[in-house]
Amino acid sequence: MSPKDVSLQALVAPIAEDLASMREILGGALVSDVPAVSDMLDHIARFRGKQLRGALVLLNASARGRSSAQLVDQGELPVVAAIVELIHLATLVHDDVLDGADKRRRVASVNRRWDNQVAVLLGDLIYARAFHLSTTLRSPLVSQLLSQITQEICAGEIEQAAGRYDFQMTPESYERIATAKTGALYGAACELGSRYPDGSEFDGAEMRSFGREIGLAFQIIDDLIDLEGDEEVAGKSTGTDVEDGKVTLAVLHAYKDADPAVQAAIRDAYTLPELEGVPGGRLKYLLESCDLEPGKAKARARAAELVESGRKRLTRLPEGTARTALYTLSEFVLERRW
Amino acid sequence: MSPKDVSLQALVAPIAEDLASMREILGGALVSDVPAVSDMLDHIARFRGKQLRGALVLLNASARGRSSAQLVDQGELPVVAAIVELIHLATLVHDDVLDGADKRRRVASVNRRWDNQVAVLLGDLIYARAFHLSTTLRSPLVSQLLSQITQEICAGEIEQAAGRYDFQMTPESYERIATAKTGALYGAACELGSRYPDGSEFDGAEMRSFGREIGLAFQIIDDLIDLEGDEEVAGKSTGTDVEDGKVTLAVLHAYKDADPAVQAAIRDAYTLPELEGVPGGRLKYLLESCDLEPGKAKARARAAELVESGRKRLTRLPEGTARTALYTLSEFVLERRW
Repeated sequence: MSPKDVSLQALVAPIAEDLASMREILGGALVSDVPAVSDMLDHIARFRGKQLRGALVLLNASARGRSSAQLVDQGELPVVAAIVELIHLATLVHDDVLDGADKRRRVASVNRRWDNQVAVLLGDLIYARAFHLSTTLRSPLVSQLLSQITQEICAGEIEQAAGRYDFQMTPESYERIATAKTGALYGAACELGSRYPDGSEFDGAEMRSFGREIGLAFQIIDDLIDLEGDEEVAGKSTGTDVEDGKVTLAVLHAYKDADPAVQAAIRDAYTLPELEGVPGGRLKYLLESCDLEPGKAKARARAAELVESGRKRLTRLPEGTARTALYTLSEFVLERRW
Repeated sequence: MSPKDVSLQALVAPIAEDLASMREILGGALVSDVPAVSDMLDHIARFRGKQLRGALVLLNASARGRSSAQLVDQGELPVVAAIVELIHLATLVHDDVLDGADKRRRVASVNRRWDNQVAVLLGDLIYARAFHLSTTLRSPLVSQLLSQITQEICAGEIEQAAGRYDFQMTPESYERIATAKTGALYGAACELGSRYPDGSEFDGAEMRSFGREIGLAFQIIDDLIDLEGDEEVAGKSTGTDVEDGKVTLAVLHAYKDADPAVQAAIRDAYTLPELEGVPGGRLKYLLESCDLEPGKAKARARAAELVESGRKRLTRLPEGTARTALYTLSEFVLERRW
């Protein structure tokens, strides 16, 4: 295991048991008696990733002194965590469709097209399964909250698509979109952990805000990593935002502070036709055409500010291993390079 | 208004008031304060079509002697009908994505790609809105039933995609897929109308079966219309199934009964590369390569059998204008050429 995995494991130690139940429930939810569907579900199991959102549900519940070992309703907590992960998984499957469409512009292939078509349907099926699972819970809270949050996520992604190549976008608009895309589900995970099954909205509000701030910070850092040329460090391909026309926070700041010539060069990096399809070409052009460091510093400072604000909220929680884990997790958000 | 529209209007006369409320609720559900989303929602309003599914909810409720004019819970009936229409609308938006992807193979265009990307997200948003609306109802029945049915629809579409170009498919497999694609939501609409808010599963079972049979018959006829060369009569482009590799009931019968040479010609109609992109080319080749009439007659006979079976179930309902309307509607399914 990499040091990263080790520290993540330590992070979730207080909820190891419920996390194991969550994974079992998740596995059980990703099966089908339709062979074609079953194949696809096996295929996408690899998307499951770090399962931070599910962990946030359980850490928040644990911080409130609740776990599945207690009252019957709280035996539902791993189900709630699994539902949050299923919603996230469905968004990933549909992101993959969109990436797939992108790739397909270069290599048109009927086979790819079927995959793509099936992926849209599979994402729909996973959303529906998540909602159906939520209707089996005693409290309607999860159904209500997650069907609302899913709308916020989609609206944010649509707004982002509509705002491509908009170099005049305000930092406020960027943050509203990034909060909807990423912060909203982090916030819902924390809120559900805090108040499920019968806590008041007030009980969940503080930790929802924590989740939304941490999630926004996570997205800001994610966008910064995409601007790093080093795919080795990132552990994934970088420069995808500039290729997709996504003007992220660091670039928005850099553009605002640049003189007209540099602004033109930044726009060129995103739009010059001859850079289309050149691997890493647009990012390379962007990094050469302006000094992004001041903009990146501003973005990093904003992420730190958000994490700091989130951490203050943690002091409202009783001291304990779960609260410490949430504190450490918020550190990860800033320090991660992955 | 065309004669068709006139007769459809007569059909829904018994529920005109609730249908108007449904359309109002539907209109209210298709708004957003995110401008980009709002534009898209206005754009897709044109998909709303005949709203037969919503009408089935209300006709079934009316046949049970219930309408929004009565008990408070039944004031929710137009909301239930609107939710069913929203689920249908979301499936249409995602079908459109898949068609869009198809078209894009020929005319690659970034603009089309954004539309496509946004359409995936918009369909997701409409699904989520439908589920959220269902969580506002007093009874969890709609949330439970429709999240289950949505999974059946998606699984059916995935199975259909996986079964493309499968000329050995059994009529049973075709019917299972067509029932999932179309019958399932018809059945859910009828079941919800029959038992919402607090009827037993037994109360809904008979009319669910009616809906699934009528829906399957509707799909069989729809597939037959796609095999008619005459787009004028069909009022939409035909031959799309053979282009997409969908082997529908009439073709399955024709293939089973054909000698090896004709079977090879049928396969050619679906697969010959030189027919790719030739408007109507594959359908023309198919119609020339074999006599589809016997297969079409078998398919039409099966649809008639299903409608007949559904009609028998209607005798369980109290006599009245709503029951008569459901009877007439089942006639439409067989006689429609649109």
